[in-house]
Amino acid sequence: MTALPNLRIDADRLWDTIMETARFGATPKGGVRRLTLSKEDGQVRDWFRAACEEAGLTVTVDTLGNMFALRPGQDMTKAPLGFGSHLDTQPTGGKFDGVLGTLAALEVVRTLNDAGIATEAPLCVCNWTNEEGSRFTPALMGSLAHVGDFTAEDILARRDAGVITVGEALDAIGYRGPATVGAQTFSGFVELHIEQGPILEAEGKTIGVVEHGQGIVWYDGRITGFESHAGSTPMHLRRDALATLSELVLAIEALAVQHGPNAVGTVGEAVIATPSRNVIPGEITFSTEFRSPDAGTLETLHQGLQAKIAEIAARRRVKIALDLIWRKEPTHFDPTVIAAVRGAAETLGLSNRPMISGAGHDAFSLAGIVPTAMIFVPCKDGVSHNELESAEKSDCAAGADVLLHTVLTLAGGRPA
Amino acid sequence: MTALPNLRIDADRLWDTIMETARFGATPKGGVRRLTLSKEDGQVRDWFRAACEEAGLTVTVDTLGNMFALRPGQDMTKAPLGFGSHLDTQPTGGKFDGVLGTLAALEVVRTLNDAGIATEAPLCVCNWTNEEGSRFTPALMGSLAHVGDFTAEDILARRDAGVITVGEALDAIGYRGPATVGAQTFSGFVELHIEQGPILEAEGKTIGVVEHGQGIVWYDGRITGFESHAGSTPMHLRRDALATLSELVLAIEALAVQHGPNAVGTVGEAVIATPSRNVIPGEITFSTEFRSPDAGTLETLHQGLQAKIAEIAARRRVKIALDLIWRKEPTHFDPTVIAAVRGAAETLGLSNRPMISGAGHDAFSLAGIVPTAMIFVPCKDGVSHNELESAEKSDCAAGADVLLHTVLTLAGGRPA
Repeated sequence: MTALPNLRIDADRLWDTIMETARFGATPKGGVRRLTLSKEDGQVRDWFRAACEEAGLTVTVDTLGNMFALRPGQDMTKAPLGFGSHLDTQPTGGKFDGVLGTLAALEVVRTLNDAGIATEAPLCVCNWTNEEGSRFTPALMGSLAHVGDFTAEDILARRDAGVITVGEALDAIGYRGPATVGAQTFSGFVELHIEQGPILEAEGKTIGVVEHGQGIVWYDGRITGFESHAGSTPMHLRRDALATLSELVLAIEALAVQHGPNAVGTVGEAVIATPSRNVIPGEITFSTEFRSPDAGTLETLHQGLQAKIAEIAARRRVKIALDLIWRKEPTHFDPTVIAAVRGAAETLGLSNRPMISGAGHDAFSLAGIVPTAMIFVPCKDGVSHNELESAEKSDCAAGADVLLHTVLTLAGGRPA
Repeated sequence: MTALPNLRIDADRLWDTIMETARFGATPKGGVRRLTLSKEDGQVRDWFRAACEEAGLTVTVDTLGNMFALRPGQDMTKAPLGFGSHLDTQPTGGKFDGVLGTLAALEVVRTLNDAGIATEAPLCVCNWTNEEGSRFTPALMGSLAHVGDFTAEDILARRDAGVITVGEALDAIGYRGPATVGAQTFSGFVELHIEQGPILEAEGKTIGVVEHGQGIVWYDGRITGFESHAGSTPMHLRRDALATLSELVLAIEALAVQHGPNAVGTVGEAVIATPSRNVIPGEITFSTEFRSPDAGTLETLHQGLQAKIAEIAARRRVKIALDLIWRKEPTHFDPTVIAAVRGAAETLGLSNRPMISGAGHDAFSLAGIVPTAMIFVPCKDGVSHNELESAEKSDCAAGADVLLHTVLTLAGGRPA
């Protein structure tokens, strides 16, 4: 049942809020640098809280800074339907990743308010802390703690590279809230997001109905070779940490290609301990990850990497330590929520296709405890985690309309 | 003619000065961090100046901080014979690289003083500024400017990573001296140094009579790929700067091996512009170098790298910029000075062999303007540019004895 089929969100108002929040952490190249719990994150949170309160929502904040903005339903015995995303960004991120889903949720509430529509179940607009994971690990920190994968105490003690803890960072911007982590209940969860990949654009489709999410394995690694003089150490006597890393990077790339098309593998960080142009690198730390929508493939990639590491380390007479720091099994979304998303797209006459999410999202966490699905819209050239990230105003509006009608289907909307 | 064949330096006194100066910039692992023109470099320079003056030498400092400690000769119409090395170290360097040659020169003077020996030609103990090149480029900065390969103005304006200029760094430790760069004349130059390679130790020889020095080419590079989401960017659409660098590192290694045994190639520095564990690296800066004692081989390596870069850049759809920032042709030392070194080793009954220097040294610069050669002694496991760098006291003393008798041969020594 899709209620009020002619109802649409305000495309201009949604776009304006996206552009307005892009000021917090704006970069010269047109992107956004709004690391989680930074000063800029505090600014956008203050803006968001005020906007929610102005829309009549009651905002609560939990101990990890997760923000919940509640709109009452006609049946308050029902758990609220959750929707939203995150407002933090990558170090050189864009205006849409996470932001679209969070502000579209606000826009849905504003649209319901303007139309005088109440829902049976309450609604809860969410802004999850540290989805990106680039300042503190793990990514999806707030939502994973919410569903019980990590304790709040564990998370509060995590440190960034500058050795500030999550707790200290929360206090610095005033977002260590009074609510207990996990106390907010939901009857379901829906997240709108840009695709962050090239498929919708390539096929000319507007809406991705996300049915599965890739599993993810994260590793931290350290290569210990031997630092020595670049001029006087013959090639065959070297124990070069960078040449070792280079073999590993190409092996990870080859493993992912071999298990494609949906598997991916990446080395995102690599730091030489004491770099000097005429010294053979002796020690390197790095991080790497694999993703696949298939749990068996993920395990095969993991085993393949272990074998490759053993072979390279022995041949090059170096030590390679690799710690698995996070493993998220592939996510399979809920058929009822998937059907509501697809139904909303069809009702609105929007082209759509089923999809697998390559990126991790807070919806992956929520899927572990309540019926959940996601809505994707195209982004330019499939680019994300980049200051050039861009999306069409009409696609953002289409996604928000699908979100609106999915919410009306799941929460039950009617004129007040 | 080796004068006074029974004269020997004081092995204990030499060793004590090495250990005493190792305090300036000492690291917990037993190495030395004494970057050129740092506070620690200022401290060791002050110590060295005082020790030279106490030994009766007249110390002058030129505009670039090169230090010259003069001992008069009986024939002051002759240009002084230069000897010495450098007192700066790598970021994680050892106690002997450069230090041995500089302090052995001081020890030779002390020995001559104690024995009441004058030389015909004056003697000039040298401490050259920034041999290492790890804070400011180029390496051999002081000696290259001395021989006219760079102007003092150019060098004074060079900046370190913290954007401090050489001029500012000189002023900060009070070593921008009044003497004009290049004004100090020499009749010849001899440098004692640890081998920084494994050959003497492996063959059980005490003295390396250095006849040639490897040519060196230094490059700065930048890879521009495209930063995007590690989860949602399929492998075949990536333009990964780190995977590109990895291919380059292995290509440089393969080129050097292919043109061995004396050619070497190294990537010593590599920095991802905005590293994040779930972002495909979009931009990397790096430095690399080739060395070979043969000019033709060096050119072949250079051409081979260019071809490899073109191939990799086209295939991976990335931009690879490579700037040749320094090229030093192979050095061929002077037959007369080489003969004096070999003669001294033979007179002293020390096992010796001809050698090629894999590392660059200030003697390479001086060889361009005056008859020059070098003396090598073994270091443990061939290790240098490393805090574990080590040398035997007896080998240091043997090298200093060869330096003493080479100086006596070239400058003409006699009881005063």
